[in-house]
Amino acid sequence: MFPKNTWYVACTPDEIDGKPLGRTICNEQIVFFRAEQGKVAAVEDFCPHRGAPLSLGFVRNGQLVCGYHGLEMGCDGKCSSMPGQRVRGFPSIRAYPVVERHGFIWVWTGDATLADPDKIPELHWANNPDWAYGGGLYHVQCDYRLMVDNLMDLTHETYVHASSIGQPEIEEAAPETKVNGDEVITSRYMENISAPPFWQAALRGNNLADDVPVDRWQICRFTPPSHVMIEVGVAHAGKGGYDAPAEFKASSIVVDFITPETETSIWYFWGMARNFNPQDQALTDRIREGQGKIFAEDLDMLESQQRNLLKYADRQLLKLNIDGGGVQARRIIDRLLKEEATSSADTAVAS
Amino acid sequence: MFPKNTWYVACTPDEIDGKPLGRTICNEQIVFFRAEQGKVAAVEDFCPHRGAPLSLGFVRNGQLVCGYHGLEMGCDGKCSSMPGQRVRGFPSIRAYPVVERHGFIWVWTGDATLADPDKIPELHWANNPDWAYGGGLYHVQCDYRLMVDNLMDLTHETYVHASSIGQPEIEEAAPETKVNGDEVITSRYMENISAPPFWQAALRGNNLADDVPVDRWQICRFTPPSHVMIEVGVAHAGKGGYDAPAEFKASSIVVDFITPETETSIWYFWGMARNFNPQDQALTDRIREGQGKIFAEDLDMLESQQRNLLKYADRQLLKLNIDGGGVQARRIIDRLLKEEATSSADTAVAS
Amino acid sequence: MFPKNTWYVACTPDEIDGKPLGRTICNEQIVFFRAEQGKVAAVEDFCPHRGAPLSLGFVRNGQLVCGYHGLEMGCDGKCSSMPGQRVRGFPSIRAYPVVERHGFIWVWTGDATLADPDKIPELHWANNPDWAYGGGLYHVQCDYRLMVDNLMDLTHETYVHASSIGQPEIEEAAPETKVNGDEVITSRYMENISAPPFWQAALRGNNLADDVPVDRWQICRFTPPSHVMIEVGVAHAGKGGYDAPAEFKASSIVVDFITPETETSIWYFWGMARNFNPQDQALTDRIREGQGKIFAEDLDMLESQQRNLLKYADRQLLKLNIDGGGVQARRIIDRLLKEEATSSADTAVAS
Repeated sequence: MFPKNTWYVACTPDEIDGKPLGRTICNEQIVFFRAEQGKVAAVEDFCPHRGAPLSLGFVRNGQLVCGYHGLEMGCDGKCSSMPGQRVRGFPSIRAYPVVERHGFIWVWTGDATLADPDKIPELHWANNPDWAYGGGLYHVQCDYRLMVDNLMDLTHETYVHASSIGQPEIEEAAPETKVNGDEVITSRYMENISAPPFWQAALRGNNLADDVPVDRWQICRFTPPSHVMIEVGVAHAGKGGYDAPAEFKASSIVVDFITPETETSIWYFWGMARNFNPQDQALTDRIREGQGKIFAEDLDMLESQQRNLLKYADRQLLKLNIDGGGVQARRIIDRLLKEEATSSADTAVAS
Repeated sequence: MFPKNTWYVACTPDEIDGKPLGRTICNEQIVFFRAEQGKVAAVEDFCPHRGAPLSLGFVRNGQLVCGYHGLEMGCDGKCSSMPGQRVRGFPSIRAYPVVERHGFIWVWTGDATLADPDKIPELHWANNPDWAYGGGLYHVQCDYRLMVDNLMDLTHETYVHASSIGQPEIEEAAPETKVNGDEVITSRYMENISAPPFWQAALRGNNLADDVPVDRWQICRFTPPSHVMIEVGVAHAGKGGYDAPAEFKASSIVVDFITPETETSIWYFWGMARNFNPQDQALTDRIREGQGKIFAEDLDMLESQQRNLLKYADRQLLKLNIDGGGVQARRIIDRLLKEEATSSADTAVAS
Repeated sequence: MFPKNTWYVACTPDEIDGKPLGRTICNEQIVFFRAEQGKVAAVEDFCPHRGAPLSLGFVRNGQLVCGYHGLEMGCDGKCSSMPGQRVRGFPSIRAYPVVERHGFIWVWTGDATLADPDKIPELHWANNPDWAYGGGLYHVQCDYRLMVDNLMDLTHETYVHASSIGQPEIEEAAPETKVNGDEVITSRYMENISAPPFWQAALRGNNLADDVPVDRWQICRFTPPSHVMIEVGVAHAGKGGYDAPAEFKASSIVVDFITPETETSIWYFWGMARNFNPQDQALTDRIREGQGKIFAEDLDMLESQQRNLLKYADRQLLKLNIDGGGVQARRIIDRLLKEEATSSADTAVAS
């Protein structure tokens, strides 16, 4: 169960560079492509002629051409032409609202009349020359909410990421969870500790001593349907921690867009935005590589957890203080799901 | 759904050379082998002793010996002997009518009392020294009718086979479909065009200039249950096209026997019969290799189309003029299926 | 269907050396590990916190630590601690009776109150310096009873193992099956034959001539739920066969513990115990390697047979004299299953 009247990250621009991309999102099979003037478009991945996936075709003059018999599909889901055929009476396929913004392609899989681009989240670090961003995509076989849980409870770093960002001090510092409207914030502060390897490297990357005690913070922010932005960083101890002046700290924003493919699989867009040395592309690449390795450590755990939960479907899980972020996030998701169900029931009655 | 009271190509003789072959055809698990005097035989792939597949065994003195405990099976589905056992009371397994003809092994998976070898199609090019044949086998995950559609609408060559036999002139020339009893014929003629790479090579192979305009033809002939023979060729332009004298043309017959394995998978026997340079085995090999590469280009499209059709089970597909061959072929198939259903109902009443 | 109130071999000690082992046995997902003082323990492979498999974690101070968020599980299925948490109210998970004996870890997947370690079979060759043992583990996709059938009817050696231990004389000598309480014994004796390659090597390994006629024996002993011990050997012909003095024979015990994973898959622990040259580790390794190759020859046959039986679910199989061992073994298994069903019904009534 996932909200459909919402914007999900569907892909990154490079994925539709010169060719269409077929991708299932919220159980909808969609093909993404660049239509006229480079505008992004998304339609069902189904040719109305003989049912071939349009994603096996190519783009010509802004039209998506079926690779089987040449039917040309427009960005509105209407066939624009086909060699030797009159296409006026051809059935349309579904077109999906789609927007390119902040370096991502966003798609709306629900009621198209409600698709307001203003609902796409503001990302203050995107399109800002003081910030750099690098990231990647993982295809993971788990319910999107398990990934939200994972990201809202960083206690797992001590175990899953013991050699990079994990350290015992994380689980020793109790987190605090607050709900602010549709936002859930789980924060954890650790003072006067030694920096783990990843943060030592970040300190060096920011031209700071890496062998002195630091204050460390993790501020996880969930917003629906399944975005998690995490402010993370370290400052030389006693300089103010999270509020320390820039010259004493290395910090960044862990960026997580979790897009359901099916009930038990996701497209996981992960990355990191930083506001130090933003022009240093080599540093961006190095951070992405390091983050990619660390985030890959979660995948086996999440997929194994998912398989276990399917087998033990009746078991209740614990909801400890460390699970507060995930628990609150699920409450918001549940409320949105209920609203969607009510709203579509209303529509059914009205029509 | 496929007709069962009909002959399907099961395998080629080399596939049962020295060992049995297990193959599922029309959902029947069958083992093919050479019985006494090299006569081909086909029985259920199930040993009545402990259920092992007989195809894991071997042939000895014309009997199929189970590779688990040595039960010997005859070509009639009756156990002929077993070490240390009296076999008279052993249950029989099903034997299938099977005929070796025209370089193929043909099997009848329906009512054996109706299996008339005279119903095996005549192939004038087989067993004829003026003709050469080369071909291969692909295992494809699609409904056999999707492959019939594919072969009866060669418009797809422009897209799927753009670099070999495809050219824009194909889709610009409207095909014509005729039904002649149980035969469906879809023809397309293109005049004064340049030959695509495959046909340039064929012209050279026939000692003809390959850089002059040609007339090209494609005459697809469907006969039930799922055989498609396609007369294809080019002639130097203005020499009479399809009817041009042999010294001005290169032509051949594309041979397609499509045998259902299950509702959504097939054994696809493809090949080419030609009547020029029939003794040139190297040419035969070269053509087979080229055809194999071209025909492999269809597989991903057909399997993707099949998956799409299973997901969008309720969608109606278009039936355009280019689809006429496939549409008419399905009508004939549907009639045969209906006749089979009626006939077996009659049998049920009578018995 | 498999008895659950019984001891199954779960794993060998090396498999839980320094790390936990997750393994499904009788449809139960279990994690095995060494708890305090090296005592073996087995609990459900499910962390009560968030459902992660505990087998992805590690052992610390005899506690099984979840690799996701650090919950510590004791060998009794009760959470012993968790960083920053009070664990008293945490739900327990199931603990399984488990015993390390005879070089194997044994688990009881049924009613724990009935788990009597004295019911673990005595293995006279284990823990005995006059004997050596070597073996391995195969994961096979078949019903455990098909493997019992296989081992109680060695006729198959003539076919499946033709190049190593098979020989026509096996199927020419009729076996005899006796039932002795819960034990089924199938014996076969062959006199004055030539030794097949495996036994020639064993004769040489025992410093005996390998090119003289031998007497050969195979005595298969089934005990429930699914253990099969086979006394096998050859003696120089005329020296007394099975009863010949040690200096004229090479013999050993084929050891088979067949542990159901699911209804159609098993953990197959195979090996060989011998009482000649027991200190010769190189010989042990050589025998294990040879046996491993021979026993691997059965797997394709058994998995193919299993698939066939699932497809032909309604067919009755033959029960010949050679099948007597398997047939009697199934009778005992069926009786045990019936007793278990009755006993649990009684319990239900009583409670």
